Amino acid sequence: MRAAIFRNGAIVVDHIAEPKPGAGQVLVKTLACGICGSDLHARKHAHRMVAMARYSPGRKPMDLKRDVVFGHEFCCEVVDYGPATQRRLKVGTHVCSLPALITPTGPQGIGYSNDNIGGYAEAMLLSEPLLLEVPNGLSPEHAALTEPLAVGVHAVAKANIRGGEVPLVIGCGPVGLAVIAALRLKGLHPIIAADYSPTRRRLAEKMGADVVVDPATTQPYATWAEHAAMSEAEKAARPPFQAHLAALKPALIFECVGVPGLLQQVFEGAPRDARIVVVGVCMETDTSEPMLGIIKELSVQYVLGYTPEEFSASLRLLAEGQVDGAALVTGRVGIDGVAQAFDDLANPEAHTKIIVEPWR
Amino acid sequence: MRAAIFRNGAIVVDHIAEPKPGAGQVLVKTLACGICGSDLHARKHAHRMVAMARYSPGRKPMDLKRDVVFGHEFCCEVVDYGPATQRRLKVGTHVCSLPALITPTGPQGIGYSNDNIGGYAEAMLLSEPLLLEVPNGLSPEHAALTEPLAVGVHAVAKANIRGGEVPLVIGCGPVGLAVIAALRLKGLHPIIAADYSPTRRRLAEKMGADVVVDPATTQPYATWAEHAAMSEAEKAARPPFQAHLAALKPALIFECVGVPGLLQQVFEGAPRDARIVVVGVCMETDTSEPMLGIIKELSVQYVLGYTPEEFSASLRLLAEGQVDGAALVTGRVGIDGVAQAFDDLANPEAHTKIIVEPWR
Repeated sequence: MRAAIFRNGAIVVDHIAEPKPGAGQVLVKTLACGICGSDLHARKHAHRMVAMARYSPGRKPMDLKRDVVFGHEFCCEVVDYGPATQRRLKVGTHVCSLPALITPTGPQGIGYSNDNIGGYAEAMLLSEPLLLEVPNGLSPEHAALTEPLAVGVHAVAKANIRGGEVPLVIGCGPVGLAVIAALRLKGLHPIIAADYSPTRRRLAEKMGADVVVDPATTQPYATWAEHAAMSEAEKAARPPFQAHLAALKPALIFECVGVPGLLQQVFEGAPRDARIVVVGVCMETDTSEPMLGIIKELSVQYVLGYTPEEFSASLRLLAEGQVDGAALVTGRVGIDGVAQAFDDLANPEAHTKIIVEPWR
Repeated sequence: MRAAIFRNGAIVVDHIAEPKPGAGQVLVKTLACGICGSDLHARKHAHRMVAMARYSPGRKPMDLKRDVVFGHEFCCEVVDYGPATQRRLKVGTHVCSLPALITPTGPQGIGYSNDNIGGYAEAMLLSEPLLLEVPNGLSPEHAALTEPLAVGVHAVAKANIRGGEVPLVIGCGPVGLAVIAALRLKGLHPIIAADYSPTRRRLAEKMGADVVVDPATTQPYATWAEHAAMSEAEKAARPPFQAHLAALKPALIFECVGVPGLLQQVFEGAPRDARIVVVGVCMETDTSEPMLGIIKELSVQYVLGYTPEEFSASLRLLAEGQVDGAALVTGRVGIDGVAQAFDDLANPEAHTKIIVEPWR
């Protein structure tokens, strides 16, 4: 079968053997698989990803001398079952799954693995207990948005919202847009979002942002402060020793960019007592001024991934139309188009999410 | 009157004018004032402190061309009242106060100010509404420990303890020791504490640490993990998707050192989902690997200072003997001894807290 393979630092097309399902596993045809920003990062910083994996117990790092098939945002069709399976879902059923494969030695990742084929190939293996049937006739390309949406749902869950916070989302790529969608469902308003790209700002509004900011012309934290002014009742309820501080509602800042220097920018702009959720995945060494965090008593919650419950909830949100992902899909390519799509995704005006359809 | 003055980057002794209390203010004789690690930092990194102050609204930065009298951990005696005062406390009463002075233009800090004299002088001004009478005949040198204890009480309050966490305190200087004392009052056990100095480890045990570690011979995070193993019941209560992770109780790590590279060490050693409270004040630019925070979903709460309630509670804890600070006081100097005391504090075997007694 054909696959887009990460080999020697580049994405190349080649033939690989179709995998055979082991006990409890299912052979599936890949219908749609989104290209994730982490895949672009991984192509560029694969050695960093490997270096960091040693800190994560149970995570087997990639061997960069061997082939890897990326792709962890997939929707598939059941083709065949391996031994020791229940065969609950009929052949032909559309399914999603967490990007993990249960093996005799424990769960392993799909998407950054030498052993487990990711979604940029014609077929792959999934684990029967992790299969989620795609409901309501949701299209494969929209079902493939389950994974990135789950990232936003998880980030918002980890933000530990108490009510009354005014959120600011820095960066409106797929991660920031998923965070905005998840915030809208929590009913927090107004949602402020910042991105240099007009296209991304339009999408942010579509996903639920109430106010969008172009950082090239407007300071996002100034706009945030305008919308975070306390009411007179809230001002009166503050402890007396806070009376000399700015009367602002609690800040909840989502860092959805993930490049060096960004967290320091947030430290500089954030108001006192801000809670910062780092959702952007910065794979390089970063530098910041801890005194800023100290003086402002900032808190930083780093997040990654999602729970199985958040993943299945995200699929339901898409299938029930509570989150409309249609606007996020800006391109579709076959296996031959993956390498070009990686390059094209560098332009936020042109693309947000490109879906790989390996059967094309 | 005489004072130990921060002038041109050094501590020198000179005469300054005795201050005159304004409206609502009180002239006090300084009985005892602890030397804080931040004062040592400030002598070395004063320009950094000034640079950082611009991020803190309402905080007036020091003018390093002018004199500053440090000292913000003080116990004083009421000498005279200014106009528009209630005169609730008799002349001669021993008092503590938050290191802040209420002025016609709002509250200003005491201790890093060109305008307000700190505790390394024979007399200073305090604000009547902030005065706390020292109860139970607590000695001035122990009452002067209120401020550093309040730092620990505040850090533990900001840690948002839910119960069941196993705390690890990195660094057993005055800040780490105050954190240990505050943790002991919360009833969290075992408290693990790490410091290279045998003297500091003995003090950590005295303040409430159950297990002390010398990082030169033992990995603190390994010792932590030994003491954080879940019970069988706790293991059984975990969600199934966590079954492949190490079965450890929640980690609560207090960074009480405050030098560059320390937070990165914590990131490397911390277990998954650890909550880190940064109490050490690092005044230099710092570098870390955000991927470590991301992979482990760490959270970092930076803290500073305390609330007025935490400050007065800390004085009561000392006066009622719930926290015994006697062992922390390792030296007493007059104004002429302040500069030497700054140098002596570099040796953790010799000193923990040196008290300045300006009347000596």
